[in-house]
Amino acid sequence: MRVAIVGASGAVGRELLALLEERRFPLSQLRLFASPRSAGREVAFAGGRLVVEALPESGDLGADLVFSSAGGAVSRQHAWRWVERGAVVVDNTSAWRLDPRVPLVVPEVNPAALDGHAGVIANPNCSTIIALLALAPLHRAFGLTRATVATYQAVSGAGAEGIAELRRQSAEALAAEAAPSGEPGAYDARPEKFRHPIAFNLFSHDSEVLDDGYNEEERKLALESRKILEAPELAVSATCVRVPVFRAHAEAIHAEFARPVSEAEARAVLAAAPGVRLVDDRAANTFPMPVTASGQDDVLVGRLRADASRPGAIALFVAGDQVRKGAALNAVQIAEALVARAAVA
Amino acid sequence: MRVAIVGASGAVGRELLALLEERRFPLSQLRLFASPRSAGREVAFAGGRLVVEALPESGDLGADLVFSSAGGAVSRQHAWRWVERGAVVVDNTSAWRLDPRVPLVVPEVNPAALDGHAGVIANPNCSTIIALLALAPLHRAFGLTRATVATYQAVSGAGAEGIAELRRQSAEALAAEAAPSGEPGAYDARPEKFRHPIAFNLFSHDSEVLDDGYNEEERKLALESRKILEAPELAVSATCVRVPVFRAHAEAIHAEFARPVSEAEARAVLAAAPGVRLVDDRAANTFPMPVTASGQDDVLVGRLRADASRPGAIALFVAGDQVRKGAALNAVQIAEALVARAAVA
Repeated sequence: MRVAIVGASGAVGRELLALLEERRFPLSQLRLFASPRSAGREVAFAGGRLVVEALPESGDLGADLVFSSAGGAVSRQHAWRWVERGAVVVDNTSAWRLDPRVPLVVPEVNPAALDGHAGVIANPNCSTIIALLALAPLHRAFGLTRATVATYQAVSGAGAEGIAELRRQSAEALAAEAAPSGEPGAYDARPEKFRHPIAFNLFSHDSEVLDDGYNEEERKLALESRKILEAPELAVSATCVRVPVFRAHAEAIHAEFARPVSEAEARAVLAAAPGVRLVDDRAANTFPMPVTASGQDDVLVGRLRADASRPGAIALFVAGDQVRKGAALNAVQIAEALVARAAVA
Repeated sequence: MRVAIVGASGAVGRELLALLEERRFPLSQLRLFASPRSAGREVAFAGGRLVVEALPESGDLGADLVFSSAGGAVSRQHAWRWVERGAVVVDNTSAWRLDPRVPLVVPEVNPAALDGHAGVIANPNCSTIIALLALAPLHRAFGLTRATVATYQAVSGAGAEGIAELRRQSAEALAAEAAPSGEPGAYDARPEKFRHPIAFNLFSHDSEVLDDGYNEEERKLALESRKILEAPELAVSATCVRVPVFRAHAEAIHAEFARPVSEAEARAVLAAAPGVRLVDDRAANTFPMPVTASGQDDVLVGRLRADASRPGAIALFVAGDQVRKGAALNAVQIAEALVARAAVA
C-alpha cells in the first residue's frame, strides 16, 4: 500500500511517521508532503531517509492511503480530489467530520461506521476521542443521557507553535526577577500563537466563540460525540480550557444515564473497555495525569465515583496523549481497521 | 485595636500584612508570630519594621484580634485559648469551619452570620470563597439546587513551598535537553511538597481521598457551601485539580436552580453582585484567567451561558486570587465587618 502524509512536518504529522514505523504499518511506499517552506527537508524513517515534498496542485499524491493533517483548509480543498484519484483519506482536520457522507471513527467505539465509506474518513477532535474512550462503553452499557465536561488541554493541540510558545514564555517568565513570594515577576509574554499568555496561566480555549456562548472546541465535543455514539439526543455541555501542559489533555466529566449506575458497575465496564487503563489509586492519591498519559496509547481513567450531586450519576477524570490517541494514533488505527476489512486496496 | 498574625511568614501571612497596610486597617499594634524557625526575622510594615516572634505556649498574644494562618493543628490547639484571653480569632484554617459554634463567613455573602459569634470566626476554603462569590447571588435570586465544579487550582494553595516547587521543577524541566517536538525531555522532578510533578503537569488535588472517592478539598467545597448558603440540601460535586499556575484559582461550574434561569437573568444578577467583575468578551475571546485575577480583589466571572445540556441551567467560569480573596483578603474583610459592627473592642 502506498501511503502519503500531508502535513508531515507538523506535530501530528511527525507522530504519524513515528507510529507507522513503530506499528510496522504494511506500506510499500511512503511519501511526505508539507508546505513549500518545509519541502526538501530530509526525515528519517525505518532506517532510511525520506524527502518532504511540496503538495502538488494536481491532486495526485500517488497514494492509496492519505493521512491529511495540514489543517482544515487543505482538507476542504483537496480531500475529495485525492479520493477521485483513487485514495482513501483519513482526515485529521475538522473539515468533514459532520458531513453525512463521512464516517467519524474511533476504532474502539464505532468501527462499523467504516463500512461502505465514500473515501474520506474523519478522525474526531482530540478532546472528543479522549472523552469517548471512557464514555462510549458506559453509554453502551447504561445509556448516556447527559455529560458535562471541563477540559485541561495541552498546547500540542495548537501544534508545534503552541509547544514552542509555552516553552519560550515559561523560560522568559522564570528569567524575570521573582517577587518576594517566589512567583515570577513581570515579563513580556509576547503572545503569538495564542491570544493570551500560556506560561503559568490558563484560558478559555482559543477557538471562536459562537452565539450561544460555547466555543468551537466545545461544540465539536458535543456534536461529534452525538455522531460517534449515534445518540442524537445526547446532552453535552463542555468548558474547554487551555492549560500550560505540553502534550496530554485531561477532562473532568460528570455523566448521567438512562438508569441509575453504581460506581462498581461503571468500574467493571471501564476495566474491560478497550483502549482504557484504570489509574485510580485513592490511597496513593494517584490518578490520570498528563505526565503519565504522554507517550501512552491508552487513555487513563480514574477518580471514578458516584456523583454526590445526583443519585445514579458518575464522576470521573480522564487523561490521554493528545498527539497520539487524540490524533495520530487514532488515525493509524482507522487505517489499520481499513486494512483489516480489506477496504483499502 | 491590637492585632496579631499567627503564621506571618507564610504566603497568606505575608499577604495579610500587605493588606492590613494597603487597606489602612485601624490597628494600634501589630504582632507577628511564626514557627521558632522564622522567629527573629524582621519584616517591613507601614514604614517601620516588625520582628517575628515565636508563638508563646502561654496562649497570650496580647491581641484583640488574631488572624490564625499557621495551619489547622495550631488553630485546633490554640484558637479557643486565644478567645479565653479576650481575642477574636479569624481562622484561616479548616480547623473549625464546620463547628456549629463558628460562623463561616464570606462578607459579601453572609455577613449576618457574624452576629453573636463565640470568638472564633472561620474563613472558608479558597475554592469555596471563589465559587460562592458567583454562586451566592445566583442562589439568592433563583435558588441553587445543584452545582458541579471542576477546579484549576494554583500552587499557592499549598503555600510558599508549593510556589517554590513549581518554580524549581519548571526551571529544571526547561534546562533538560528538549525532545525534537520542543517538549522538555526527561528530568528529575524530585517532588517534595507535592506527591507528583507539578511543572507542565496537573494532578488531582493533593488532599486525602475519602471513602466515597471525593478528596478533602472537594468535600470542603460541598459542605462549606451548604453552611454559608444555609442550604443543607444543596447538591455539590467537585473535581479539584492542581495546575501549574502560581496564585489564582479558576473553576468551571455548571449550576442548576429551583426554576429555569436564562443567561440574561444570570448576567443581570452577576453584574450587580459585590466582589464580582464580569469578564466575558466573546468577540475578543477574553474571559477570566489566573494572570488577570492575580492581585485583584474581585473574583472574575465569565463564560456565562445557558447550559446546553439542561434547559434552565447555567454554565460559567470564574477566577480569583487564591492568596487574596481566597484567603487573606476575605479574612481582613471579616475583620473589617467586625469593626463596622463594633464586635471587636
